[in-house]
Amino acid sequence: MSERNIPYKIYLEENEMPKAWYNLRADMKNKPAPLLNPGTLKPMTADELRPVFCDELIKQELDDTTAFFEIPEEIRNFYKMYRPSPLVRAYCLEEKLQTPAKIYYKFEGNNTSGSHKLNSAIAQAYYAKKQGLKGVTTETGAGQWGTALSMACSYFDLDCKVYMVKVSYEQKPFRREVMRTYGASVTPSPSAETEVGKRILEKHPGTTGSLGCAISEAVEKATTTEGYRYVLGSVLNQVLLHQSVIGLEAKAALDKYDIKADIIIGCAGGGSNLGGLIAPFMGEKLRGENDYRIIAVEPASCPSFTRGKYAYDFCDTGMVCPLAKMYTLGSDFIPAPNHAGGLRYHGMSSTLSQLYDDGLMEAVSVQQTDVFKAAEYFARVEGILPAPESSHAIRVAIDEALKCKETGEEKTIVFGLTGTGYFDMVAYQKFHDGEMENYIPSDAEIAESLSKLPVVE
Amino acid sequence: MSERNIPYKIYLEENEMPKAWYNLRADMKNKPAPLLNPGTLKPMTADELRPVFCDELIKQELDDTTAFFEIPEEIRNFYKMYRPSPLVRAYCLEEKLQTPAKIYYKFEGNNTSGSHKLNSAIAQAYYAKKQGLKGVTTETGAGQWGTALSMACSYFDLDCKVYMVKVSYEQKPFRREVMRTYGASVTPSPSAETEVGKRILEKHPGTTGSLGCAISEAVEKATTTEGYRYVLGSVLNQVLLHQSVIGLEAKAALDKYDIKADIIIGCAGGGSNLGGLIAPFMGEKLRGENDYRIIAVEPASCPSFTRGKYAYDFCDTGMVCPLAKMYTLGSDFIPAPNHAGGLRYHGMSSTLSQLYDDGLMEAVSVQQTDVFKAAEYFARVEGILPAPESSHAIRVAIDEALKCKETGEEKTIVFGLTGTGYFDMVAYQKFHDGEMENYIPSDAEIAESLSKLPVVE
Repeated sequence: MSERNIPYKIYLEENEMPKAWYNLRADMKNKPAPLLNPGTLKPMTADELRPVFCDELIKQELDDTTAFFEIPEEIRNFYKMYRPSPLVRAYCLEEKLQTPAKIYYKFEGNNTSGSHKLNSAIAQAYYAKKQGLKGVTTETGAGQWGTALSMACSYFDLDCKVYMVKVSYEQKPFRREVMRTYGASVTPSPSAETEVGKRILEKHPGTTGSLGCAISEAVEKATTTEGYRYVLGSVLNQVLLHQSVIGLEAKAALDKYDIKADIIIGCAGGGSNLGGLIAPFMGEKLRGENDYRIIAVEPASCPSFTRGKYAYDFCDTGMVCPLAKMYTLGSDFIPAPNHAGGLRYHGMSSTLSQLYDDGLMEAVSVQQTDVFKAAEYFARVEGILPAPESSHAIRVAIDEALKCKETGEEKTIVFGLTGTGYFDMVAYQKFHDGEMENYIPSDAEIAESLSKLPVVE
Repeated sequence: MSERNIPYKIYLEENEMPKAWYNLRADMKNKPAPLLNPGTLKPMTADELRPVFCDELIKQELDDTTAFFEIPEEIRNFYKMYRPSPLVRAYCLEEKLQTPAKIYYKFEGNNTSGSHKLNSAIAQAYYAKKQGLKGVTTETGAGQWGTALSMACSYFDLDCKVYMVKVSYEQKPFRREVMRTYGASVTPSPSAETEVGKRILEKHPGTTGSLGCAISEAVEKATTTEGYRYVLGSVLNQVLLHQSVIGLEAKAALDKYDIKADIIIGCAGGGSNLGGLIAPFMGEKLRGENDYRIIAVEPASCPSFTRGKYAYDFCDTGMVCPLAKMYTLGSDFIPAPNHAGGLRYHGMSSTLSQLYDDGLMEAVSVQQTDVFKAAEYFARVEGILPAPESSHAIRVAIDEALKCKETGEEKTIVFGLTGTGYFDMVAYQKFHDGEMENYIPSDAEIAESLSKLPVVE
C-alpha cells in the first residue's frame, strides 16, 4: 500500500474552516453572460429579480467582481454541525485498482440531506429569514436539495414548499417522509397546483417531469404567494458561491499535507457541486498560479456540455424564468427517466458554461450502467454506498486511475463524492436485476428542442 | 450559548485511535456467568463452541481476565475508513432545551451500515477469513447488523448468509438491496429453509419473527454447512469487546478536552452498543477511580432489564444455542412489532446483566411514541435523522437534561447515537400520520414466557 503518513481522512480543525465563500467570477476574464429579461432581452436588474429572489441573494447573484463574501456566523455555526466534510484518501480503491495514481475524494454525504446541497440551503434560508419572509418554494430532482432545504428551513423556522420531479417522487418514496420530518410540504411535479403545471400536463400528459418543469411551478408559487420567495439548489451563481466551501475545504486539506492535485473531477447536472469543488483550483488556474485538468461528468442521457449548444435559453420548461446563457439542450428537452435525478437538467451553470467555452475545463458523458458498475465497485471497496449522481464522478476517476496504471504516471486525482445512495435502492435493485437501460437522445431529438431556443441578438 | 472552546465535533487523530479493545470483564469482581451446555448444564468448552463460532472469537468469548486485546492491523485499517466517529457537542440541543446540562453524543451512524454494528462485523469477518472459512451466517433485526456484516464479508471476500426478522424485512425493503449490493443473500425469518424455521412457522403461522427465531435459523445453517460459522451482532462477550472501540474513542475525546462525564446513556437491545460505549467508564467505576451514572434504555414493549428475570435461558427461540444467564423475558417471548427492530430481543448481554444485578447501572423503559417525539425533535434541532433504536437514548438524554434545567445542575451527559434512520421512514410515516401505537406486554404474558425458562440447578 502507498505511503501512510497521509491519513485515510483529512479533517480540518474548526478554526481552519473557511470564513468566506470564494466568488470564482471575480477572477474570470470572460465573465459569465448576465441573466436577461425575456421581454426586453436586457440584463435583469436587481429590482426585476426582487419578486423572485431574496434581496441579499440577488446581490450575490449579480456581483462578479467581489472575490470573497464573508460567511455569516449563524451559517458558520450550522456548518459546524456537519462540516468540515472529510477529504478521504482512497487507499483501498488505489490498491484494488493497482494504480500508481493517488485518489482523493471530498465526501459531502455525511449529513441527513445526504449531499452537498445543505451548504447552499442553509445560506439561502438564512437570508430569507433575515429578510423577514414567511417561507420559500423550490424544486427538487433526486430529493437531496429538497431535503436539505427542509432541514435549513426547519432550523430557521421558515415554511418550505417543495415541487419534486415526479419520477423521483415515485422512485424515492421515503425522501418525502424525510422532508415531512422537517416540516416541509412536498408536491409531485408537474402538478395541477399551478398554471404552468396544468399547461405542461396538458401538453405532455404522461410526463415523469423534469427539473425544468418543477422550477417553473416553484417560481410561480413564490411570486404569487405573499411573503414567499423562490430558492434554487443549483445553476445560479449564488449557489456556486455557497458551494465554494467544498473546494475551499478540499484545497485547505490538500495544502495541509503539501499535496498538489493534478485532476479534479465532478459530476455536473446544474453545476452546484462541480462549481463549488473546483472554485479555488480554477481560481489558481485563472490567475496563472497553477494548472489543473478539470473534468465535468454528465449522463449520456442528458449531455448539456457534450452535445448541447452555448446559447441563451430559458432556465425552466414553463419559460417563466429569466434567460441564461449556458450550454443547453433546450428548455423543452425532457430527459429520459434515468436514475440520477439530480443530473436531469437541460442546461448548465452560466459560470461553468463560460469556463468550458473558454477551454478551461473538459467534459465527458457516461452511460448509466457503466456508472452503476462503478458505484457498486466503489461501495464494496471503499465502504460508502454512493448516490447515482456522485457515481458519475467515480466512473471517470476510476477510468483516469486506470489510465495512470497503463502509463505508470503517479497523478493525484481529486473527485467530488457528493452524496450517498441510501434513497436510491430502487435504482440499485434494477441494476442488480439486469433491468437497467441506457438512454441516449437522438441527434434529431436534441436538434428539435434546440430549434426552439429563444432568439437573442 | 455555552463556552465555545470545545468544538462541535471532537475527532481523534488517526494515531490517537485505540490500538486494543478493552475487555470489561477483566475488571469485574463478579464475572458474568458462563454459557452452559443445554444438555449437561456444564460450562461450554471451547471445543463445544467450535462448530458454531470461529476459533479466535471463542477465545475472546471465554476470556474474562485479559483486559486488552490488540486490534489486528487489517481491522485497524478498515476502521480508518469510517472511524474515528465524532463525539458531538449538542450545542443546538442544549440551547433549544435551555438546559445548563452539557450534552455530548457519540455518533456511530456515518457509515453505510448506518450504525455501530460495523465495528464488530469487520472483526468477526476478519477472524473467519483468517481461519480459512468459506462464509458466515447471521441474523439481523433492523437490518443494520446484516448490512454491516455484508460490508465486512465483501471486504474480505467471504460468503454472507443473512436471516432477517420478517417484520424488518417487510418494513425496510431497501435494506435487502443494500446487502445485495455487498453480495449477501438475505432470507426473511422464520423461513422454510431450516428445520427450526419450519417448526416455528408451524407453531406461530402468522409470526412476524424475532431476533430469537432468526438466530436459531442462522445457527442451524452454519452448523450444517461445510466451511461456515455463525456470527452474532450483539449479546455475546466478543461483541462487547469489539464495540469497546466506541467507548474508548469517546473517553479519549473527552479526556482530550478535560471533560468529565456524569451520566452515560445508551439504548439496550442485546447490549452491543451500550456495552461498548460504557466499557472504559464502567472500568473506572469498577476500579474505584471514578463514578458515573450509567443508564440503559429499553423499549417498553420488550423490557428485559426492567421486567425480566435474571436467570439462565436460551439465547434463541429454537433453543439450539447454549444457555446464557441474563435478564430475560423468556426465549418464547415474541415482542410486539415495534419499530426499533434492533431492540426486539428477549434477553440481554450476560456482562451487562451481571453489572445491572450488581447495581452498577440503571435501566429505564420508554414508550414508542415518546421515542419518536424525541427523534423528530432531535432531527430538527441537531440535523441528524436518528434510528428508532438510537432514539431511545435520545429520549432519556433529553429527559435528564430537562431535570438539570429544573435543578440548575450543569451535568455532563454523554449518550450513544448508534445510527441513522434513513431506512426507517415507514416508521416515521406512521408517526407523522398518528398511526403509531404503544405496546406494553401484560404481566400475564411475561409470566407465561418466563414459566418456560429452563431449569438450571
